[in-house]
Amino acid sequence: MENSLKYIEENKKRYLEELFELLSIPSISALAEHAADTRKAAEWLRSHLERIRMENCKIMETKGHPVVYADYIKDSTKPTVLIYGHYDVQSPDPLEDWESEPFEPTTRDGNIYARGVADDKGQLFTHLKALEAIMQTSGNLPVNVKFLFEGEEEVGSENLDEFIKENIELLRADVCLISDSHALSETQPMMEYGLRGIIYMQLDLSTMPKDVHSGTYGGNVPNANFELVKILNKLKNLDTQEVLVPRFYESVRSIEETEKLDLQNSKITDETILEETGAKEIIGVDGFSVAEREGARPTLDINGMHGGYTGEGPKTIIPAKASAKVSMRLVPNQTVAEITEKFTSYVKSLVPSYVNLEIKSLSSGEPLLMGKENEFFKKAETAFEQTFGNKPVYELAGGSIPITATLKTLLGIDSILMGFGLPDDGLHSPNEKLSVEMFYKGIKTSLLFFESFRK
Amino acid sequence: MENSLKYIEENKKRYLEELFELLSIPSISALAEHAADTRKAAEWLRSHLERIRMENCKIMETKGHPVVYADYIKDSTKPTVLIYGHYDVQSPDPLEDWESEPFEPTTRDGNIYARGVADDKGQLFTHLKALEAIMQTSGNLPVNVKFLFEGEEEVGSENLDEFIKENIELLRADVCLISDSHALSETQPMMEYGLRGIIYMQLDLSTMPKDVHSGTYGGNVPNANFELVKILNKLKNLDTQEVLVPRFYESVRSIEETEKLDLQNSKITDETILEETGAKEIIGVDGFSVAEREGARPTLDINGMHGGYTGEGPKTIIPAKASAKVSMRLVPNQTVAEITEKFTSYVKSLVPSYVNLEIKSLSSGEPLLMGKENEFFKKAETAFEQTFGNKPVYELAGGSIPITATLKTLLGIDSILMGFGLPDDGLHSPNEKLSVEMFYKGIKTSLLFFESFRK
Repeated sequence: MENSLKYIEENKKRYLEELFELLSIPSISALAEHAADTRKAAEWLRSHLERIRMENCKIMETKGHPVVYADYIKDSTKPTVLIYGHYDVQSPDPLEDWESEPFEPTTRDGNIYARGVADDKGQLFTHLKALEAIMQTSGNLPVNVKFLFEGEEEVGSENLDEFIKENIELLRADVCLISDSHALSETQPMMEYGLRGIIYMQLDLSTMPKDVHSGTYGGNVPNANFELVKILNKLKNLDTQEVLVPRFYESVRSIEETEKLDLQNSKITDETILEETGAKEIIGVDGFSVAEREGARPTLDINGMHGGYTGEGPKTIIPAKASAKVSMRLVPNQTVAEITEKFTSYVKSLVPSYVNLEIKSLSSGEPLLMGKENEFFKKAETAFEQTFGNKPVYELAGGSIPITATLKTLLGIDSILMGFGLPDDGLHSPNEKLSVEMFYKGIKTSLLFFESFRK
Repeated sequence: MENSLKYIEENKKRYLEELFELLSIPSISALAEHAADTRKAAEWLRSHLERIRMENCKIMETKGHPVVYADYIKDSTKPTVLIYGHYDVQSPDPLEDWESEPFEPTTRDGNIYARGVADDKGQLFTHLKALEAIMQTSGNLPVNVKFLFEGEEEVGSENLDEFIKENIELLRADVCLISDSHALSETQPMMEYGLRGIIYMQLDLSTMPKDVHSGTYGGNVPNANFELVKILNKLKNLDTQEVLVPRFYESVRSIEETEKLDLQNSKITDETILEETGAKEIIGVDGFSVAEREGARPTLDINGMHGGYTGEGPKTIIPAKASAKVSMRLVPNQTVAEITEKFTSYVKSLVPSYVNLEIKSLSSGEPLLMGKENEFFKKAETAFEQTFGNKPVYELAGGSIPITATLKTLLGIDSILMGFGLPDDGLHSPNEKLSVEMFYKGIKTSLLFFESFRK
């Protein structure tokens, strides 16, 4: 192990250069014009897995962007770790807010800046570099591994469940390892034992076949913007922040007292959130801490809305069409089917007869709770403590990693969330970053985790 | 006069070809990238005025797009008619909804299709062609004329008031003639004796410096879209359609009984509006007819709104910024200053301390009521009746032509609104059109109006 740690130290610079290559590929899965780039990132990873001497490295097709698979299986008496990551990234817009180009990675003040560096290219890469170090110094791995890198995480992993169903035997493992989350600081690791689910809906509303002149018709015909505003306004009570979809909270799991204490230690406070987001005030439902609201309570947001003329200057129209993207974060024991039904029937009940409204689901994922007593969870805890000098604190994640729920259902396995980002990395925002220090600590933690399987 | 009517008949085809030249210039005043095109349209008109032997033809600069001026003044005992029009056009978006290119004029089913053909290039051109016919057949004009063609009507005529103030003597006239409105049908002319005013505001709201991840922060920080929705929802009661700005209706002039009867004859009915707009229901304040609501009642619309991610697929952000364009149509005796103050202070009162909101005015114009007893009004009535075979009906216009209020204030003159469009021309919408028949009837009406000044 001393040798492999030394190997990492000696190859630090090259590791970073390799990561920059991957970051330079604009693999924006949501945009059709970047489909070829997305495939290029998959191919880069496949080829890199081969280079670090993994086996059966291949691109596997789905109905959307492909999956990258590889494995290294030598000893059936040892457990198998399935390493999941995603090579696709969010759209970088608004481009004008980036200080450096999103797909020209650069290092500034101890951070790597690039779209996808924290979410998720930089994080998944830590495991490849840890395994390379072990292979180069020991000639083999202390555990069996499989790789599953997808290219559709940022668009809701639409085809992943199908892929897993069709490849259950290929993917069978004892645990899944995912690095797509964050520590609290460069010295304080954090482990998430639960994840929120998500339902992401698109609402498309129209009141007329086309926009009309607001002078000629103002006062007599329905305005699509106003009709959309009326519906959106009834989704949440902004005074209490409570979601107004009837029976939305009905199946929400209550938090246990021991969990409340754990969450108090998570160091997510009003102050950290205000600092990270720049908001002036915490706005949430009374009676819960920010950590509880983030991980243990469901919520609803309007992620986007658009209607009418939004260019320069005035345009005197009454808009005929308006759209909104509305997503809900779910917690155990809410289900996607239950909340989709409640949301859809509520929204439909709000629509007057002179308005056309189409509702469609853009993506969804079930919420999940994992076992802290699991042996793999404990090994990860130890690797974190050895690397960071502090035991991890526990959190319930506010985000959603839909694959964790799928793996639980289809393969019966838990996922270990080993996050190497930091809370202010700016995921999905301009100037996304990953601390260089955290990148190297990630590689070391991964190495210690894998080495812990050596007899 | 027989000769000039014959001249029009003989030159019909060329008249249309010349109009097509003007329509081909994409003089979209709202878009900076079309500034050169906008000037090109001004230059085209200046040169055309020269060609039809008007005098002092010139481009006059403003802080924005220029004014085209010309005149023909030969007899100080005769009245002077100031002919106003605008050579700028609305943006043609959404482009995909056009059946033919917006700046490649074409004739289909008896209509000319092109952006700006009805609003206002085709209409202002009728007067040039009438005057050309008179000049070519009589060698002089029976009345003095001045031309004022502006390039900023579609962006609120921002610099026109200033221009008029600085050129009061140059522009002094006895009446203003404006063709920027419509008849009811190809056989039923209509004359507007009042115009609504307008206030067009931009609201820019922010809750954080940048978008944040909706998983990590959902439930704890303010969503700019929701905050904007809350404000917009309080601008109008969608059940009664009443504007909720306090004391908004306080100074609205009551409609006289004779006017109610005139407006009943205007033939604007629920059915015509439903047919023209394609809306499923008339949505307006109870107790008023559609004609009254269009011209004699103020209203408020959200012309555009935007916030967060509105591209393809899902993006899991909580938006930091959201914007809306909100305009109000004013009627006598509301004033721009009064309603701006009431709107602004109301909106500010709705904004919580954790939200930043900027409100700015994009354009405005006072409402106006004109005298039906005026001699010019009567001459126009007669010209209409002679051309169309029917007396015009009276209407109060729902739209706004801010210059009419400025001319009343600064020059003390009324404006005659001689509209040659039709109600379904699709101003500001895709597939804007002008009936070929109405274009020629416009030229004839204009000719009869000018000839009525001959002793």
